[in-house]
Amino acid sequence: MKKLAILSFAIMLCSASYAQQALFGGQDIVSPQINDNNTVTFRLQAPQAVKVELTGDFLPTQKRQTPMGEMDAPGVAALTKNAQGVWEYTTPAPLASELYSYSFLLDGVSVTDPNNVYMVRDVGSVTSIFIIGGGSGDLYKVNDVPHGAVVRRWYNSPTLNMDRRITIYTPPGYEQSKADYPVFYLLHGAGGDEEAWIALGRTSQILDNLIAQKKIKPMIVVMTNGNAGQQAAPGESAKGMYKPTFMGDTRMDGDFEKSFPDVIKFVESNYRVKKDKANRAIAGLSMGGFHSMHISKQYPDLFDYVGLFSAAIMPREGVTSEIYQNTDEKLKVQFSQKPKLYYIAIGTADFLFDANTDFRKKLDENKYPYTYKETGEGHIWKNWRIYLTDFAPLLFR
Amino acid sequence: MKKLAILSFAIMLCSASYAQQALFGGQDIVSPQINDNNTVTFRLQAPQAVKVELTGDFLPTQKRQTPMGEMDAPGVAALTKNAQGVWEYTTPAPLASELYSYSFLLDGVSVTDPNNVYMVRDVGSVTSIFIIGGGSGDLYKVNDVPHGAVVRRWYNSPTLNMDRRITIYTPPGYEQSKADYPVFYLLHGAGGDEEAWIALGRTSQILDNLIAQKKIKPMIVVMTNGNAGQQAAPGESAKGMYKPTFMGDTRMDGDFEKSFPDVIKFVESNYRVKKDKANRAIAGLSMGGFHSMHISKQYPDLFDYVGLFSAAIMPREGVTSEIYQNTDEKLKVQFSQKPKLYYIAIGTADFLFDANTDFRKKLDENKYPYTYKETGEGHIWKNWRIYLTDFAPLLFR
Repeated sequence: MKKLAILSFAIMLCSASYAQQALFGGQDIVSPQINDNNTVTFRLQAPQAVKVELTGDFLPTQKRQTPMGEMDAPGVAALTKNAQGVWEYTTPAPLASELYSYSFLLDGVSVTDPNNVYMVRDVGSVTSIFIIGGGSGDLYKVNDVPHGAVVRRWYNSPTLNMDRRITIYTPPGYEQSKADYPVFYLLHGAGGDEEAWIALGRTSQILDNLIAQKKIKPMIVVMTNGNAGQQAAPGESAKGMYKPTFMGDTRMDGDFEKSFPDVIKFVESNYRVKKDKANRAIAGLSMGGFHSMHISKQYPDLFDYVGLFSAAIMPREGVTSEIYQNTDEKLKVQFSQKPKLYYIAIGTADFLFDANTDFRKKLDENKYPYTYKETGEGHIWKNWRIYLTDFAPLLFR
Repeated sequence: MKKLAILSFAIMLCSASYAQQALFGGQDIVSPQINDNNTVTFRLQAPQAVKVELTGDFLPTQKRQTPMGEMDAPGVAALTKNAQGVWEYTTPAPLASELYSYSFLLDGVSVTDPNNVYMVRDVGSVTSIFIIGGGSGDLYKVNDVPHGAVVRRWYNSPTLNMDRRITIYTPPGYEQSKADYPVFYLLHGAGGDEEAWIALGRTSQILDNLIAQKKIKPMIVVMTNGNAGQQAAPGESAKGMYKPTFMGDTRMDGDFEKSFPDVIKFVESNYRVKKDKANRAIAGLSMGGFHSMHISKQYPDLFDYVGLFSAAIMPREGVTSEIYQNTDEKLKVQFSQKPKLYYIAIGTADFLFDANTDFRKKLDENKYPYTYKETGEGHIWKNWRIYLTDFAPLLFR
């Protein structure tokens, strides 16, 4: 009787929703299916499709001709159709522990996996994701450990003359504690926003897990929106649900760096935090590394910990902002105050590798100490999650 | 020079990402495109596809044969292909102001619109969304008004013996104020979780906008997870990224209702709130209406405001929980204490319409006063957003 009541309730509810397809049409497709040996099987029920392929960051990259010359493109694998119209592909080898992203190419159109509700947005593209555990991927999973809180809220920036959205992670126990906490400001790259580190970077999972393992100090993580022309992530401001474009509101004109004290003032007047240099860290990926470099040298009294992850070290000749003037003198002041950690990380295949090598040469010539981490691969979120995991344990020691 | 530097930066970045397709392949497709007259054009670049259709809640429903008999199913419209391989469909008439959801049927496979990054998950289905403004849809938009904060955090439920995730909206000004706030507990339906009201219900937008219009009192909104067998929304607990199923962890065995004082205790010890009956409201949709009915009568001292939105008024004969015993006596106690508002809302096409009519008959027979709102249509999020917008202004008066 109980089961029957629930069943009829379910059926009636579904008659009003899209879920009916799963109840009445077709089969119960599982995709992706992570097999016991860590191979992964992908499935798509598409009896009328002519061709189904998939592309993902676990497939070997392929060379591709573009108007800019030959470039690396994600690999493509073909699915094969069975008699029931279900297309399937299993990776030939187990995948290493990691967070992966993929799309189907359904008769040539790149779409997310309709059987996988877990996806991430990167600029204007949404892809399906999954995690292989048993290694570093376990840090990106939600595990049975105490969880911090993640809030989306708004602060006012007098410098930029706008209200702006911000994402803040507070560690487990923050609310019950009476202690003051150190603060880590974590900046996204071009194309990102205040959602990027949470969604693509798995920041709350990484922090929860590293805190539970006692590998890092409990800290507050502040994820700003680094696009000076933007109040909030796409869809989260009065600009509405527009189509996001790469660097559409980014600017990189020095205004975001100039406005950074507004962020600190907001955090330090709204959270129970330690308000000295030894308890402030700043790091960012790509454009966020560029921002971290410029903010930390512009305000040399603010941060004892600085991290440049695949930093976009690049001249801004056409830009007149004071932020980008007298870089060498400002670096001299910053390093004369002996920051506790100046950290540079980059992948050997990153298009910014040479720019970072040149920057390190400059630091070397001036005998400015820094910590250097070199990984394989290039300008990808896999590396940024690794750098975050490597950098956070070094903070506030 | 500046533009060139940014362009080359963009191109280099994109070589490592999925975004390259937009730069090098194909055209810059806009979909959905809301036209000046509020017709909407949908586009999909799919030169190799044989057939492209779309289904959405703005299309007239169609009758469909199912194993359970004839049922209403969302309408389907065909797109037509142009010479460039772009499929297109424009609604024949302007759409009324509302939030709509849709999917493409690409050679028979239901997929989200790859050119639209805005989507919502309902149980195991993800659909694309858009908003038509100029009417009630404006309440669901992010407008240029002060914004509240939305936090995802965890509380402990001794009754359920688990840590559980919860979503809490605090109104603009809460952090700066010294005042105590009233609290509105807002419950999801079967298949939902602590993300449902925020994502599908647009709760933070509705609250921000109604507060800015001075139509409601600033209040805290607490969105629980009403599935007693579940710690958190799919993907947000150690259960991992599993495929969500309808009512998979729902139970409806009385345990969630029994545990509700744990939620109140958490909120009242962590937020600056008014802690009396006159400043507590509870409402929910479908299963959440069922929960609101049972919780408010089980604990008659807790809530002066009760809302049943398309409530799943249903007997639970097979369930032995004390929560479902002696309903009539408990209602008598509840109404003898004269709650300030007992609110029932339902659509005339809702499969629960008759059950709600029977319940109202019982209230009438006992002369228990209530407020009744009847709308068109059925068991859909459009109605629940309307009921929230109608109910919230009645609270804490």
